[in-house]
Amino acid sequence: MPSQPSRELETFPNPFPERDYTIRIKIPEFTCLCPKTGQPDFATLHLEYVPDRTCVELKSLKLYIWSYRDQGAFHEAVTNQILDDLVAACTPRFMRLRAEFNVRGGIYTTVVAEYRQPEWDAPEVVRLP
Amino acid sequence: MPSQPSRELETFPNPFPERDYTIRIKIPEFTCLCPKTGQPDFATLHLEYVPDRTCVELKSLKLYIWSYRDQGAFHEAVTNQILDDLVAACTPRFMRLRAEFNVRGGIYTTVVAEYRQPEWDAPEVVRLP
Amino acid sequence: MPSQPSRELETFPNPFPERDYTIRIKIPEFTCLCPKTGQPDFATLHLEYVPDRTCVELKSLKLYIWSYRDQGAFHEAVTNQILDDLVAACTPRFMRLRAEFNVRGGIYTTVVAEYRQPEWDAPEVVRLP
Amino acid sequence: MPSQPSRELETFPNPFPERDYTIRIKIPEFTCLCPKTGQPDFATLHLEYVPDRTCVELKSLKLYIWSYRDQGAFHEAVTNQILDDLVAACTPRFMRLRAEFNVRGGIYTTVVAEYRQPEWDAPEVVRLP
Amino acid sequence: MPSQPSRELETFPNPFPERDYTIRIKIPEFTCLCPKTGQPDFATLHLEYVPDRTCVELKSLKLYIWSYRDQGAFHEAVTNQILDDLVAACTPRFMRLRAEFNVRGGIYTTVVAEYRQPEWDAPEVVRLP
Amino acid sequence: MPSQPSRELETFPNPFPERDYTIRIKIPEFTCLCPKTGQPDFATLHLEYVPDRTCVELKSLKLYIWSYRDQGAFHEAVTNQILDDLVAACTPRFMRLRAEFNVRGGIYTTVVAEYRQPEWDAPEVVRLP
Amino acid sequence: MPSQPSRELETFPNPFPERDYTIRIKIPEFTCLCPKTGQPDFATLHLEYVPDRTCVELKSLKLYIWSYRDQGAFHEAVTNQILDDLVAACTPRFMRLRAEFNVRGGIYTTVVAEYRQPEWDAPEVVRLP
Amino acid sequence: MPSQPSRELETFPNPFPERDYTIRIKIPEFTCLCPKTGQPDFATLHLEYVPDRTCVELKSLKLYIWSYRDQGAFHEAVTNQILDDLVAACTPRFMRLRAEFNVRGGIYTTVVAEYRQPEWDAPEVVRLP
Amino acid sequence: MPSQPSRELETFPNPFPERDYTIRIKIPEFTCLCPKTGQPDFATLHLEYVPDRTCVELKSLKLYIWSYRDQGAFHEAVTNQILDDLVAACTPRFMRLRAEFNVRGGIYTTVVAEYRQPEWDAPEVVRLP
Amino acid sequence: MPSQPSRELETFPNPFPERDYTIRIKIPEFTCLCPKTGQPDFATLHLEYVPDRTCVELKSLKLYIWSYRDQGAFHEAVTNQILDDLVAACTPRFMRLRAEFNVRGGIYTTVVAEYRQPEWDAPEVVRLP
Ligand SMILES: [Ca+2]
Ligand SMILES: [Ca+2]
Ligand SMILES: [Ca+2]
Ligand SMILES: [Ca+2]
Ligand SMILES: [Ca+2]
Ligand SMILES: [Ca+2]
Ligand SMILES: [Ca+2]
Ligand SMILES: [Ca+2]
Ligand SMILES: [Ca+2]
Ligand SMILES: [Ca+2]
Ligand SMILES: [Ca+2]
Ligand SMILES: [Ca+2]
Ligand SMILES: [Ca+2]
Ligand SMILES: [Ca+2]
Ligand SMILES: [Ca+2]
Ligand SMILES: [Ca+2]
Repeated sequence: MPSQPSRELETFPNPFPERDYTIRIKIPEFTCLCPKTGQPDFATLHLEYVPDRTCVELKSLKLYIWSYRDQGAFHEAVTNQILDDLVAACTPRFMRLRAEFNVRGGIYTTVVAEYRQPEWDAPEVVRLP
Repeated sequence: MPSQPSRELETFPNPFPERDYTIRIKIPEFTCLCPKTGQPDFATLHLEYVPDRTCVELKSLKLYIWSYRDQGAFHEAVTNQILDDLVAACTPRFMRLRAEFNVRGGIYTTVVAEYRQPEWDAPEVVRLP
Repeated sequence: MPSQPSRELETFPNPFPERDYTIRIKIPEFTCLCPKTGQPDFATLHLEYVPDRTCVELKSLKLYIWSYRDQGAFHEAVTNQILDDLVAACTPRFMRLRAEFNVRGGIYTTVVAEYRQPEWDAPEVVRLP
Repeated sequence: MPSQPSRELETFPNPFPERDYTIRIKIPEFTCLCPKTGQPDFATLHLEYVPDRTCVELKSLKLYIWSYRDQGAFHEAVTNQILDDLVAACTPRFMRLRAEFNVRGGIYTTVVAEYRQPEWDAPEVVRLP
Repeated sequence: MPSQPSRELETFPNPFPERDYTIRIKIPEFTCLCPKTGQPDFATLHLEYVPDRTCVELKSLKLYIWSYRDQGAFHEAVTNQILDDLVAACTPRFMRLRAEFNVRGGIYTTVVAEYRQPEWDAPEVVRLP
Repeated sequence: MPSQPSRELETFPNPFPERDYTIRIKIPEFTCLCPKTGQPDFATLHLEYVPDRTCVELKSLKLYIWSYRDQGAFHEAVTNQILDDLVAACTPRFMRLRAEFNVRGGIYTTVVAEYRQPEWDAPEVVRLP
Repeated sequence: MPSQPSRELETFPNPFPERDYTIRIKIPEFTCLCPKTGQPDFATLHLEYVPDRTCVELKSLKLYIWSYRDQGAFHEAVTNQILDDLVAACTPRFMRLRAEFNVRGGIYTTVVAEYRQPEWDAPEVVRLP
Repeated sequence: MPSQPSRELETFPNPFPERDYTIRIKIPEFTCLCPKTGQPDFATLHLEYVPDRTCVELKSLKLYIWSYRDQGAFHEAVTNQILDDLVAACTPRFMRLRAEFNVRGGIYTTVVAEYRQPEWDAPEVVRLP
Repeated sequence: MPSQPSRELETFPNPFPERDYTIRIKIPEFTCLCPKTGQPDFATLHLEYVPDRTCVELKSLKLYIWSYRDQGAFHEAVTNQILDDLVAACTPRFMRLRAEFNVRGGIYTTVVAEYRQPEWDAPEVVRLP
Repeated sequence: MPSQPSRELETFPNPFPERDYTIRIKIPEFTCLCPKTGQPDFATLHLEYVPDRTCVELKSLKLYIWSYRDQGAFHEAVTNQILDDLVAACTPRFMRLRAEFNVRGGIYTTVVAEYRQPEWDAPEVVRLP
């Protein structure tokens, strides 16, 4: 049976919960509809997070992204909503979503939103020379 | 009716005012006139801001940018003025404008100016490795 | 006295008329108005030609390009018209104009047109390995 | 009234029919559905043509591209079909369509198809050194 | 049931056999073993062909490529063999395979081989300026 | 005798243990199998570390990487496991591993994990202007 | 009357002295003479500064740069001297000069020097995610 | 004794006169003066030639290029003159000079000129796929 | 026993002598000595050939390249000599060698030489659109 | 008399010892021998330092680099040794050496080492927006 778009995000247990580590995901194929004109909008999504107990399952993430294909969505609102949905699904220690929308009217727009567990402390970044 | 250049910047309510997040806008088609020679100048504008109660509406931003097409403007002054106009329109928590002007006389000039609400504290930046 | 936009293209005598050689000129700052919407359009022009008795003078070329700033012009028509004006000014042995317009409606358009003296034979191109 | 996807391609009279010249159009936002899996496919279309009596109107081209959003389409078939539709709409002297599809299963596919009026002779290409 | 590596290449009928057109396929994940050292070799394959009655089916192509994972293969021989297998599977009008192998001993090697139906005449290439 | 894949990581004495310095290693040829589908996965590994008493020997590192060729491995788990194995082999003052996996299902995934000796203090980074 | 090289740097009043903002200037056409060999040296200069009461006037900056054309100058000394001259001319809150010299003897050299008003405090940099 | 700019071009005997082969030379440090304004102009020169009995000696070529530093020169004329001087010095079978001048007034200019021995036939170029 | 530099080029039988195909080899690590100054010179070699009965063995090619490390060699002469040695070793149907030397005195030099069997006809190149 | 490789590093007095400033030097032509195989190794060296009383003289640096041409050297050891030699020669306030070695066995290695005068405090870095 072919797969279907779905808002159900699935997760799997974090295999190394004792360690803060980074998962970065690039999704170049996000598309939704402009609520004003009804015409398609396109964006590349950049997600990065530190998992806590669970990680986002990639196939369900793909179906979730697909679910926006026929939905009207403003740039600022949809970026924050996708972040909220992902946070609700896996409650990461930290998560950042950057949505780079395609040019419209000669103007390029990017929206970036973050979530952080209130009690989580970002580890000191070691920069090697 | 065709649209017209206009100094009226319009805004819409920030859909996620409870969260500090970033909106980045690139405008590659800024042009004005050099006050000394009367000849056209060109620049790419890079705007980034953290909205407070309102966000800048993109179509009115385009008409605003258009309004400089027949106006004489020095690089340093016009960058600061555009920042001030945008701040007056939406009172962001933070806003930065970078204007990269095209080469003139073999010299490339860029001007960067910022605004910050006096009471606003930039959130600690989390850098994931 | 400051310079003015002008349709007058000036030329100077070709210093080596006995030799077919190439002059290439890139003009990244072309702008005109869209006849449908009245809004600004932008393009980069790429000109290449083999001069005959005269060469195009660069300062007058700059003023000529400037003269389109307030004029409505369709992509296809304006590219062919600029080529015709340049040909009328200097009657080159060969001339090609490529106009790369900025994205509009998510679509990028380029127009390329050529002129060739009926009696002129392009020299055999030597490609060194 | 908001615009709608449409298979109707509109044209306008070629402003310089006496000259063979090139129109190049890049459309980075093509999307359709995979007939096997039902999942979205994405491609960038590159069109280049020599117009005869008419040129393709860009806004109708955008709505035409949009019309594939909910249609199942194989890479090879859809590239040839779009070419045929564009040829039927404006009967160009020559037209080439290159469709660069996004990676699937670790494999990148591009399809290129051409049309040429039987009586049309491509002009000798002049390459300046 | 999970898929398996396989030397069986499958095809599907060419949807536009009346037209010479190009299919280009990039496969960045080819790996085999060096017959001298037994160690893994890696390459990116670039395939381009003009289909005749059938086209190569992509999923079977992926399994075919996979089948080299445990096989010893010299650069020159394996490039020619893959070309021959693909030609045997779909008898294209023309096919070219370029294999770009990863650096070994500080030296980068690429092998390019072609097949052409004896009776097939490459159509004249139209180069638009 | 040809070399064999091996999980044995060898080390050699750090020639400058009195100084914190950085060793960076890029390995573009990592491949394993997807535990769900059995199909090959590919990644580029980026390793950087501050050695303590020993450094990782490169030839054994190559054989170690090779040992994953026939093993099923999830992205998150295998990145953390390779880091743990390398830490067990040479107990570095600090080590970071970034694994950039090839696109799957239109999605690009990168995993980054770090180890740090509890007692080790990263030296202040001097940034010269 | 044609312009002349000159060591006289001119300034104009800073239009926004109440705000710390950045002016960046790239000058790709610096040339002087090597004091050892007498042969020409070439560099690209990158200047960035926070103006205080005055800004550097660009035309006089161009003539100033020109004044080094016939002067012998060592890389380290000339970079520091140009910085000192610019500081003397406009007393900026902060100024940095980076001079990237062309390759000589297979070696590429860059020199970077800074000035800072003793009483000036660099504003905290806000980095938006 | 330090070297001096000089118009004397020196040559050395072609070590393989029995074979047509290519010598390509890139000179990024050409500078002369604009005859109209007296200000410096800059260009990168690209020379390629098939030597006959002699080759151009590189050190004398460097001193020759240096000799333009204080000379007024128009773009078109100086490119043709340098070509003529080089041809006079070594009488190559074929020589092409491309001069890419730095942007002036927002316009980029390149001039390309060629020389060919009347009796010389360019060898057929073999293009390997 | 460690390997040694050697002028002995080894070959192996061409596995597909019935087909004209291309082998491309890039060697970024060529170094010799300048006969005038005794100082090291560096180049990247690009070799491409159509093998006849034998192919060049890569390990012996590496040792051959190594053999120039202590030898004085002029750019033009050494490029032609390496080509001649390779031709003598494997008598290819066609061979081209391009040597891109590192910058010296601000000047970049490349030398390209070719060999072709007198009786060999380059196959018509098929260019797919 | 031609120059010779030499371990003698020469210096000249720092012309601006009262100011902390940066000197960056890129040396793309480092080569030594692998102690295990005896075969040549290659690297690009990136040096940056804040001079104290003296600066490194470039010509002697070139001869110093040359002196490794016939010497066996491990990546980690030689990077630290070159740093130590340079520090011994000019006792800089701060010095960092990054050695990027060419790929070996499919693996790319970089080594970075630093020296800092015990009493020297890196100046606060001013980052302009
Ligand atoms: Ca996009
Ligand atoms: Ca913290
Ligand atoms: Ca611009
Ligand atoms: Ca443009
Ligand atoms: Ca002809
Ligand atoms: Ca795409
Ligand atoms: Ca590869
Ligand atoms: Ca034919
Ligand atoms: Ca990869
Ligand atoms: Ca610390
Ligand atoms: Ca430079
Ligand atoms: Ca401070
Ligand atoms: Ca230049
Ligand atoms: Ca000929
Ligand atoms: Ca090189
Ligand atoms: Ca290197």
